Amino acid sequence: MTIKRPLNEEIIATHNAKHSAAIDADYAALAAKLARVGINIDAVKAKVASFAVAIPSWGTATGGTRFGRFPIPGEPTNVQERLTDCAVVQQLCRVTPGVSTHFPWDNTSDPAAMREEAESLGLYFDAVNSNTFQDQPGQAETYKFGSLSAAAKASREQAIAHNIDCIEIGKKLGSKALTVWVGDGTNFPGQQSFRDSFDRYLDSSAAIYAALPSDWLMLIEHKFFEPAFYSTVIADWGVNLMAANALGAKARCLVDLGHHAPNVNVEQIVSMLDRVGKLGGFHFNDSKYGDDDLDAGAINPHRLFLIFNELVEAELRAPKEFAPAYMIDESHNLTDPAESLLSAAEAIVCAYARALLVDRVALKAHRESNDVLMAFKTLRAAYNIDVSPLVAKARVDAGGAADPVAALRESGWRKAKAAERKSEVNKAAGII
Amino acid sequence: MTIKRPLNEEIIATHNAKHSAAIDADYAALAAKLARVGINIDAVKAKVASFAVAIPSWGTATGGTRFGRFPIPGEPTNVQERLTDCAVVQQLCRVTPGVSTHFPWDNTSDPAAMREEAESLGLYFDAVNSNTFQDQPGQAETYKFGSLSAAAKASREQAIAHNIDCIEIGKKLGSKALTVWVGDGTNFPGQQSFRDSFDRYLDSSAAIYAALPSDWLMLIEHKFFEPAFYSTVIADWGVNLMAANALGAKARCLVDLGHHAPNVNVEQIVSMLDRVGKLGGFHFNDSKYGDDDLDAGAINPHRLFLIFNELVEAELRAPKEFAPAYMIDESHNLTDPAESLLSAAEAIVCAYARALLVDRVALKAHRESNDVLMAFKTLRAAYNIDVSPLVAKARVDAGGAADPVAALRESGWRKAKAAERKSEVNKAAGII
Amino acid sequence: MTIKRPLNEEIIATHNAKHSAAIDADYAALAAKLARVGINIDAVKAKVASFAVAIPSWGTATGGTRFGRFPIPGEPTNVQERLTDCAVVQQLCRVTPGVSTHFPWDNTSDPAAMREEAESLGLYFDAVNSNTFQDQPGQAETYKFGSLSAAAKASREQAIAHNIDCIEIGKKLGSKALTVWVGDGTNFPGQQSFRDSFDRYLDSSAAIYAALPSDWLMLIEHKFFEPAFYSTVIADWGVNLMAANALGAKARCLVDLGHHAPNVNVEQIVSMLDRVGKLGGFHFNDSKYGDDDLDAGAINPHRLFLIFNELVEAELRAPKEFAPAYMIDESHNLTDPAESLLSAAEAIVCAYARALLVDRVALKAHRESNDVLMAFKTLRAAYNIDVSPLVAKARVDAGGAADPVAALRESGWRKAKAAERKSEVNKAAGII
Amino acid sequence: MTIKRPLNEEIIATHNAKHSAAIDADYAALAAKLARVGINIDAVKAKVASFAVAIPSWGTATGGTRFGRFPIPGEPTNVQERLTDCAVVQQLCRVTPGVSTHFPWDNTSDPAAMREEAESLGLYFDAVNSNTFQDQPGQAETYKFGSLSAAAKASREQAIAHNIDCIEIGKKLGSKALTVWVGDGTNFPGQQSFRDSFDRYLDSSAAIYAALPSDWLMLIEHKFFEPAFYSTVIADWGVNLMAANALGAKARCLVDLGHHAPNVNVEQIVSMLDRVGKLGGFHFNDSKYGDDDLDAGAINPHRLFLIFNELVEAELRAPKEFAPAYMIDESHNLTDPAESLLSAAEAIVCAYARALLVDRVALKAHRESNDVLMAFKTLRAAYNIDVSPLVAKARVDAGGAADPVAALRESGWRKAKAAERKSEVNKAAGII
Repeated sequence: MTIKRPLNEEIIATHNAKHSAAIDADYAALAAKLARVGINIDAVKAKVASFAVAIPSWGTATGGTRFGRFPIPGEPTNVQERLTDCAVVQQLCRVTPGVSTHFPWDNTSDPAAMREEAESLGLYFDAVNSNTFQDQPGQAETYKFGSLSAAAKASREQAIAHNIDCIEIGKKLGSKALTVWVGDGTNFPGQQSFRDSFDRYLDSSAAIYAALPSDWLMLIEHKFFEPAFYSTVIADWGVNLMAANALGAKARCLVDLGHHAPNVNVEQIVSMLDRVGKLGGFHFNDSKYGDDDLDAGAINPHRLFLIFNELVEAELRAPKEFAPAYMIDESHNLTDPAESLLSAAEAIVCAYARALLVDRVALKAHRESNDVLMAFKTLRAAYNIDVSPLVAKARVDAGGAADPVAALRESGWRKAKAAERKSEVNKAAGII
Repeated sequence: MTIKRPLNEEIIATHNAKHSAAIDADYAALAAKLARVGINIDAVKAKVASFAVAIPSWGTATGGTRFGRFPIPGEPTNVQERLTDCAVVQQLCRVTPGVSTHFPWDNTSDPAAMREEAESLGLYFDAVNSNTFQDQPGQAETYKFGSLSAAAKASREQAIAHNIDCIEIGKKLGSKALTVWVGDGTNFPGQQSFRDSFDRYLDSSAAIYAALPSDWLMLIEHKFFEPAFYSTVIADWGVNLMAANALGAKARCLVDLGHHAPNVNVEQIVSMLDRVGKLGGFHFNDSKYGDDDLDAGAINPHRLFLIFNELVEAELRAPKEFAPAYMIDESHNLTDPAESLLSAAEAIVCAYARALLVDRVALKAHRESNDVLMAFKTLRAAYNIDVSPLVAKARVDAGGAADPVAALRESGWRKAKAAERKSEVNKAAGII
Repeated sequence: MTIKRPLNEEIIATHNAKHSAAIDADYAALAAKLARVGINIDAVKAKVASFAVAIPSWGTATGGTRFGRFPIPGEPTNVQERLTDCAVVQQLCRVTPGVSTHFPWDNTSDPAAMREEAESLGLYFDAVNSNTFQDQPGQAETYKFGSLSAAAKASREQAIAHNIDCIEIGKKLGSKALTVWVGDGTNFPGQQSFRDSFDRYLDSSAAIYAALPSDWLMLIEHKFFEPAFYSTVIADWGVNLMAANALGAKARCLVDLGHHAPNVNVEQIVSMLDRVGKLGGFHFNDSKYGDDDLDAGAINPHRLFLIFNELVEAELRAPKEFAPAYMIDESHNLTDPAESLLSAAEAIVCAYARALLVDRVALKAHRESNDVLMAFKTLRAAYNIDVSPLVAKARVDAGGAADPVAALRESGWRKAKAAERKSEVNKAAGII
Repeated sequence: MTIKRPLNEEIIATHNAKHSAAIDADYAALAAKLARVGINIDAVKAKVASFAVAIPSWGTATGGTRFGRFPIPGEPTNVQERLTDCAVVQQLCRVTPGVSTHFPWDNTSDPAAMREEAESLGLYFDAVNSNTFQDQPGQAETYKFGSLSAAAKASREQAIAHNIDCIEIGKKLGSKALTVWVGDGTNFPGQQSFRDSFDRYLDSSAAIYAALPSDWLMLIEHKFFEPAFYSTVIADWGVNLMAANALGAKARCLVDLGHHAPNVNVEQIVSMLDRVGKLGGFHFNDSKYGDDDLDAGAINPHRLFLIFNELVEAELRAPKEFAPAYMIDESHNLTDPAESLLSAAEAIVCAYARALLVDRVALKAHRESNDVLMAFKTLRAAYNIDVSPLVAKARVDAGGAADPVAALRESGWRKAKAAERKSEVNKAAGII
């Protein structure tokens, strides 16, 4: 199939021509620097070129908070437009070929056609996401008091059925995983029995798990708080692992970087989950306070690096088995979503590139001899390297843009879409 | 003016008759216990009877999160119905005579009539709240990048004008304070200059302050995060105080219990603000994680007590000057808002009652002699007292219900309203 | 064996005589109040009378911080004196018959004699605690870089041997559990492999577990941070459970209230651990910031109640199996340790008493019908009850003091000991 | 005066010779890269060369926690040896010429001679630190219940006198500032009146302030918690500023990076304090949980950069007035203190260098036009630059080592000192 990418390739070519000399010079300087410590930059570039992180379809539109939402002209208003924007992002950065769907938001009467359309845009469908944290118009039962863990059997059954529907659509889209996040929890001490809620969650999840094709994974997402503010049913990685163990081999734990208590060492959790074969994947974003859903690496790029340091170690340990699902999960409240996705994808792949540059032989030796400072400095040396030219080179080699955000602006994409796409009639005004 | 209270008084009388023997017995037992340590329960009851905390008009309807909202049948759908529900709450608990309005949500073409209506319901209007954290349909300028602190002059001017409008309406409603909370802040490091944003905030606020009647206060509210997730312009009480000092004597700091960093000692902040005459008032609610807006005292009733302990000390120091504005500011996502308001009002007044029972002579002596344990135990002794009969007696004496939530249910109010009031056509589905 | 209690019984009798009328009056009033809702106060008192929480021997002396320690005259200076002070506390409050030892601090050449001495004081030995977080004079290997998880095999072997020594002493003392807390962790990213450290921890722990008598438990304690400040090997309940599952049925998880990330819902963790039969016990204390080791219930008495609410539910579910190890684990930096222990024991038993008063039939019904507010209010109703007279009555019935701290002061115990006991030559000046 | 530096200069020269080619190559590549965006690398290097951060004398010895301390052979055991180690650090890195003293730890009978010794080592004395958070042997009054804020007048007077003594010694040492941190606070609700404690603190501080020479500053340090665990007298920057304003123009606020509540935006505080002319200086370190006192930049190098971004902006605004006191304040528990100081100094100066590279013209334009993403990317572009060659070049130019930690190891300094210096007889065993 010929891929029909949304942006005019000449615009990208012109853009790249302007930057090629600088990238080549920086790449050569970095190559020389790395060569001094025995690293072949081209080998690293090849690894970087094989990296992929999925985009959530809903991430292409402006997000918001309970206090309000501020949409921009030209943002996508339906699943086709969301797919197109995903293709734009992928065309420019070349590390986001996968699209993660969310139902009922991405409902389609013809999944096969949607799959074909995606493939024609150079995209494939990654994990399917169910939605049982809000009530849809016409829905028979409410999720106000929970979904998979609700005390009311009818609510649980409706939530189970919806998840199985998601699997069915996902099969037609070519997806291989179902991501389950529930907003279930409580706002008052005493509101529910922690134990009974969790038992009900497990029972419901087992029914979904039973409907999972043999080559699918079920990715369970935990979250510390919000929308429930006293307790959440799957509050942390401990409960998440308890659930994944109870369900079976196809159930894995998904780590969202913003779903943890303050100060928690997320890279250690990554390591612990990988150790027991239960690291299912990631929702990348960044946060300073709660589940802020900011652009990946915007607040704490060092943490992102430390997580990739664990991931690179995990891959080295078991290169064949290691296949976590990576997705960007951000709420783009103030920026053009496509620009933020490009910026985040860059931050993520740069973190991966830095982690690839860690001298693991030296690190191991320092750890064994308790040379604490040198172990730290070994990691830090890799973090300090400016990998931008390496990543840019890999991207341009693959057909992407030297500076994706700049190229997008040069293309005039959003302005053109603002003229074409149906603007939102009502600005969402927040629901406090 | 004759007060026309919404609920049939006979229902309350019948309800109270059922509970009077128990309340009297418990009150007598408590009176005896307090008498042993020299406390006259009737004097405490009189103080309790004079306590008041305002209800925000918007608190009478179901709140929500960015993930969704789950309204209930019969909840108020306009400002008149919100006022009526406030009157129901006040009729039952008798400590919530004030109503705090929020504009444009409570817009009215005839403020004088609205004031008359409120008075006829036994209510008065407390502080007026402006809203510059979301864009209203038809609004000329956006608040997406800030309001009072926005880089764009036009956004600032629009926000100033709106606040002055609020003062104008408030004057007609009989309000005596303007509460200003802005969602202004940033989501990215570098997005704005902290200093320039704050300077612009101060300039804008000075323009509002200039429009304030001489007997009004301007209550400034700080908030740690949300909807801005990297920084907020008025992030903590330190910046708040800086602003209040810059603006003048009528500017005071408002403390919302959920707007602080984790683990912060809020009662100490209360003490520090009172020390410099800048404690303007409170937004009562409770939280476990962020600005959870849960029912006051639901998560940490002891903290609520410690705050009232400071407030009682402050009042004793300067009984004439001490007049902070008290308001309940909760998001009722899962409960009937009227029931939650009744429950919260009870928690608040009970915390106040307990604080009144602290043996302050003993406390002072233990503090001076560094008898740490006895100082603590003096406070704890008051906290441990079950003040329910005292508070119930005060409430019944004032015409309220022995058990307000039970009485409300017995009255059938919500069911009746569900039949009368226009149901919401669209359930809000969240805006993530 | 006749028990020789340290304090003159007449002092206690005289003290109690002063308070008996007030206690009786309050008890009668509470009995009447509870009777109205169908609760027999004497049955509750019997449950309360059977409650026990152990005292750590080291808790009888003044604690400190890295910035300094401020000892008091008359505090115990050796294990015999620590035992005596434990006996004083138990004599007064009658809920602390167990003593938890810590080695090498409580080393003795004759464990059998020590056990006899304890029994003569009305005490028994609870869990034994090992110490591999500091280096002892003359110790061959250092724990600077870890103990059970150290990269250095010799350090691990020394730590294993020490734990086995603790078991051996414990057997002679009549203990039935070994509590293992290690300070192992890192201060720098990269310092150690999370996974390798945990694997080594598990290997070492398995060697200790193998030495455990069949009727003993191994209680594993997790801690979020301190003394390690980037990561700790057993950081949270998730890793703790992973370890306990790997070791076997006799390994259980111990919950210290101060060892969690900010805002974590500890009562939910209690429920989850109990669900899988791995709730080993508690270290009771309180905290506002980190592992502050403050007096139990001093900062957040409501949280303590919510935890006991889970414990009471757990006991009701499996009354025969439920036997968690309860211990007070506080650092008494500013108060007389004996007084703080009495105050904490009171707070703990009161939390238990309140939890016993929850109307569990109503709670269950409200949970099943999603009556959120009433479920909450059912819990809150029990929390609001002043159980002091109930607990005092149980204590006095058992031979304890009406007001333990007051009675201790009246006895002149500490002053007498200040004259007898060898004062510390050097005040510890902190080690920053 | 000829400077007698501790290490053999030839060792450094030999070391540098090995690295010069690599540094030159990397420097040239960076120069080219910066030239493309109009930055002259030599001008930046000159700014970097003028940077200085003081070392605390106590930071040259192994720190510890309440759980223990693990000293290393050869660490300094008295003030002379501490000075020598400071000189070693400065010899290698050339950005740490100042030494901050702490009394009574650095007591000397002959301050003039000590000053001469320091100058002969190429050092000068920075701020003097008082110590009223622990009791010294023979001290008349205790600080157990506070020092400057104590209820006991005698304790306050002793603390005031000690601070004035520090000023007197400081004058002879050539210092120009007194840093005041007190451990004062409480462990129990009710223990003290927040207001009275603060009033006493202010009174005491005013007495110290009065003794301050006209060209000195008084740097006030706030701290969120520890050693007090319920409240601290100077808990946050708000109280700190309140105190500094009350005392006068010479009183300034000192920011320690680890002394804040979780998630607090420290760079914003820096900006706010600078705005009102009260930013006195910094204690640099890093933390993940509490006041972890880890090596600066070890945990969150991006935060360090954001702080320097504010500092560079502040300097640009008022280049003449801007003169904050910079000090490293870390607890080196696991590493050789000299190595950690070198590593931290490098991290700090690199953060400064990156902040110098921010394109401030572009940043300002993006902020004014609300181009959120580009404002962020402008900052991030500077952060991503590997400034190591720039900083190394500046260091070598000034006589320092290409790789300071490596050079220190090559010199054999610590081993030589281990043979010379009196080892500590007692390992501190922790004081829990």
